[in-house]
Amino acid sequence: MALPHPSVDQLDLASILGVLGDQTRLGIVAYLAGNGDKPLNCGQFLVLGSKTNISYHLAKLREAGVTRTEAVGTSRLITLRRDDLDRRFPGLLDSIIASAGELPGLEDARVDAVT
Amino acid sequence: MALPHPSVDQLDLASILGVLGDQTRLGIVAYLAGNGDKPLNCGQFLVLGSKTNISYHLAKLREAGVTRTEAVGTSRLITLRRDDLDRRFPGLLDSIIASAGELPGLEDARVDAVT
Repeated sequence: MALPHPSVDQLDLASILGVLGDQTRLGIVAYLAGNGDKPLNCGQFLVLGSKTNISYHLAKLREAGVTRTEAVGTSRLITLRRDDLDRRFPGLLDSIIASAGELPGLEDARVDAVT
Repeated sequence: MALPHPSVDQLDLASILGVLGDQTRLGIVAYLAGNGDKPLNCGQFLVLGSKTNISYHLAKLREAGVTRTEAVGTSRLITLRRDDLDRRFPGLLDSIIASAGELPGLEDARVDAVT
């Protein structure tokens, strides 16, 4: 069953900023960006929080249109909706990712994701 | 009595994004930017909400370090902390303002602020 995602036209700036106003969710976005925007499995975010916690944050990010969640077999793959976000709000995602890179703790997450 | 403001080092990305995850607060920021970053009196935001409502939102913006509020005689002057934000999170404010410019309703507010 496919999970609901907002269309590009439905992306709302206030909702996106509100959802990104959270350290763990910024961490998830930085983690995805640090991994070259390649899809990551839910489990790969466990360095950022517990399973329940991460599931909650991934749902929030999906509902705001920041990430896409796809069920592949028994696992869920998460991708950053960079193209959609860039089309709707040019430069926004990059500036947030660049700013998030300075946050303590996220550096480690990014390195883990890349290696 | 001077109101408390976070220092540049205390500016926190998640707090700033969280505070800007609100249509009225985005409107206030777009309004200030549309007015060439010149200080605006509290009362000039009343096009965006009631007095109580605007006071609440201005306090949130000040506490997160997005705006500066200065008491001048009996009125309060609000300025965008662009230099501080740009120093800490280069490009972030501009990309948010550019994205906010597309929001319905804010165009009118910006035009009112300029005229």
